[in-house]
Amino acid sequence: MRKIPLLSDLSDEEIIKVKGEMRYRHFPKRAVVLHKGGTGDALLFLLSGQLQVIDVTEDGRAVGLRMLAAGDFFGEIALINASTRSASVVATTEVLVAFLPASTALHLFSHSPSVAHKMLGHLAQKIQRDSEFRALLSINNTTRRIYTYIALMQQTEDKDGRRVVENLPTHQDIANMINTSRETVTRALLVLAQQGIVQKDAHRLIILDPDGLQRLAQGG
Amino acid sequence: MRKIPLLSDLSDEEIIKVKGEMRYRHFPKRAVVLHKGGTGDALLFLLSGQLQVIDVTEDGRAVGLRMLAAGDFFGEIALINASTRSASVVATTEVLVAFLPASTALHLFSHSPSVAHKMLGHLAQKIQRDSEFRALLSINNTTRRIYTYIALMQQTEDKDGRRVVENLPTHQDIANMINTSRETVTRALLVLAQQGIVQKDAHRLIILDPDGLQRLAQGG
Repeated sequence: MRKIPLLSDLSDEEIIKVKGEMRYRHFPKRAVVLHKGGTGDALLFLLSGQLQVIDVTEDGRAVGLRMLAAGDFFGEIALINASTRSASVVATTEVLVAFLPASTALHLFSHSPSVAHKMLGHLAQKIQRDSEFRALLSINNTTRRIYTYIALMQQTEDKDGRRVVENLPTHQDIANMINTSRETVTRALLVLAQQGIVQKDAHRLIILDPDGLQRLAQGG
Repeated sequence: MRKIPLLSDLSDEEIIKVKGEMRYRHFPKRAVVLHKGGTGDALLFLLSGQLQVIDVTEDGRAVGLRMLAAGDFFGEIALINASTRSASVVATTEVLVAFLPASTALHLFSHSPSVAHKMLGHLAQKIQRDSEFRALLSINNTTRRIYTYIALMQQTEDKDGRRVVENLPTHQDIANMINTSRETVTRALLVLAQQGIVQKDAHRLIILDPDGLQRLAQGG
């Protein structure tokens, strides 16, 4: 339990209470762990495997939003807002998921200073990311808009210390998100690859030169 | 102090501590209370008057994001993320603003259950709004995209119980935000007015028939 960052600073007493209320469930690869529109009756923790948050658009296309790794929690927004799930979560490998009932989770959020602190930081970062995304939409130069979008994408570090976008949406999805054409996205990514700034590899994008990307995004 | 919703459930002891650390300042109409890019060294409360949160785009246009009323707090994101201010805040009337130093505010956020609870609810609602906005961008039908955007705008209730968008952006700003032309926005608003769904009045938009708007947004 102490390996889950959100819970790592709980008191022994709190850990015992949380342990007693956790429920565990295995899901096979491709299973839907959370359904968009469902009720927010638990906070979820990914204990092993990998999950993908996906949204289904009006016209039925599934857009991958972000990946979750072991130790991550999810499903907190519907819980806090007492609203329905705003996206679906799908297993991309076999996974083990822990469920903490809403009432216990909500009590922790406001009564455990360490959890409150981490949860506020988590939400404030999401908001900052969304506000950067909104600002991005006002960039008139299409190519710079694409570069800025790539620079803002969630990045992880691989074994070699390189920054990697693990879950690159399709060129069409990127085009839809930031209001341009698929062809323009393809062309911009090609230019970045030719300049040695990124390297594409199936659904991953390796950012070889983050500073160079930043310079291009800022119009340099 | 008890009239500020965020602080209304503090203990007497907490109220005394907070009171002792608050600093107050008057600003004239049109003064800039927070500067985009400045440091997040305080949580701010609007005690009287009205403020507008504005963002300045790449090409120097000021876009009004939302209005703040007496009792509202602001500037919490930069504080929690230890980042710079992501937008500016400008006085639209003469205002009285209270400043609570960052360290005291951050301590309250995680150690006062009532503040933690309210702050989490506040942030989670912002996130839900941003995610609805993102989903809106994937609506292919332009007119429905405009209707959905209007339905999602921050609304207050006027004396007669009508829902009012107090701070309607210009048609050009709306067009920029949701990827369409100014002419299309003007036309869509005209159709809504002709159908008796909205009524325009300087910078306010009165939503006379919220259900009708919702139906049109959903393509009915």
